[in-house]
Amino acid sequence: MARVSQEHLDARRRQIMDGAALCFARNGFHATSMQDVLKEVDLSAGAVYRYFRGKDELIHAIVTEVLEDVRLAFEATGGQTPPPPPYELIGTVMAQMLRERPGLRVDGVSYFPRLLVQVWTETLRNDELSAVIQDGYGKVRAVWVTIVKGYQEAGTMRADADPDAVARTLIAAAQGFLAQQALFGETPVETLQIGLRGLMSMGEVS
Amino acid sequence: MARVSQEHLDARRRQIMDGAALCFARNGFHATSMQDVLKEVDLSAGAVYRYFRGKDELIHAIVTEVLEDVRLAFEATGGQTPPPPPYELIGTVMAQMLRERPGLRVDGVSYFPRLLVQVWTETLRNDELSAVIQDGYGKVRAVWVTIVKGYQEAGTMRADADPDAVARTLIAAAQGFLAQQALFGETPVETLQIGLRGLMSMGEVS
Repeated sequence: MARVSQEHLDARRRQIMDGAALCFARNGFHATSMQDVLKEVDLSAGAVYRYFRGKDELIHAIVTEVLEDVRLAFEATGGQTPPPPPYELIGTVMAQMLRERPGLRVDGVSYFPRLLVQVWTETLRNDELSAVIQDGYGKVRAVWVTIVKGYQEAGTMRADADPDAVARTLIAAAQGFLAQQALFGETPVETLQIGLRGLMSMGEVS
Repeated sequence: MARVSQEHLDARRRQIMDGAALCFARNGFHATSMQDVLKEVDLSAGAVYRYFRGKDELIHAIVTEVLEDVRLAFEATGGQTPPPPPYELIGTVMAQMLRERPGLRVDGVSYFPRLLVQVWTETLRNDELSAVIQDGYGKVRAVWVTIVKGYQEAGTMRADADPDAVARTLIAAAQGFLAQQALFGETPVETLQIGLRGLMSMGEVS
């Protein structure tokens, strides 16, 4: 058998991951069979099973990668002093997430939000994946707690607001916006940014 | 055969809906069989099929009811002039949702958020349910657009913020907070309220 290059192996693995991710985004993890995946990626069972021993291994690889994409997108926003305002940071996070994984684009629409909602559902009944998502969420929260403290040190946010509560709320806005993309179709990221600026303008001080 | 009262029929229907909702919240719609539901509600197939012809009919009834609960919780917040601040309204919405459906409480924890995330997933691959959720979301957005306009008329929010964008953002915060409850366990509603007040204190005006 001819030796194949690492690039070829990686590209083939990427092709399988993207095709499977599209299947899962459309129909969910449970309702998608390995047959569906083989049909989507147009490869033989032998070719696919060389990379993934079965559906569970494929699910684990995809869920882990999605959560890693989410974590990296959020973490990329940290580290500036003073931190840019929330609507700017959230805009960066959202743009990065929707730009990720070109293989997840169909007719110009990103299937990432749908895949993320499917991942949430899958983690509800899988303790191992639940631990992965809890760990990732903890890291994202820690990054945003630091950002919120940066606002408070710069005097742009009331000092008595619990940083963890604000971090959770900003992450919730991002999560909910992604759920809306999955459920109701693509909306420009600017919509969320305008909404956050509207809220921020309310100047709640007492 | 003895005549049974309407109350008895309603209570039995409620019992089936609650048991099925718990199964779906735990394992999702696709992975739950009618056998699982029969076991959960401790009734015979004959007793259950008198109310629901099959799993699809049961799913439709439960999804419709969940979305109706969401819509009613959001709509109950409208109608006051000037409207109370967002963190108060969102607090009311969340408290009502988590209080709903006592049959969905297990050991004091509401399975409503989990059920909602499962509903989102189910609507991704079911056009009929997708239409139901789109319709409900449209109504909720309309209520919140009116509320946001109320803030702008009262001068508490910048007048140039697109009301629909702010409405979507507030709904996103609520959706994301519910996703967090499902994924990471119960958190007091006050967390979201503190977070919103923190954001509102940023006084973004330019």
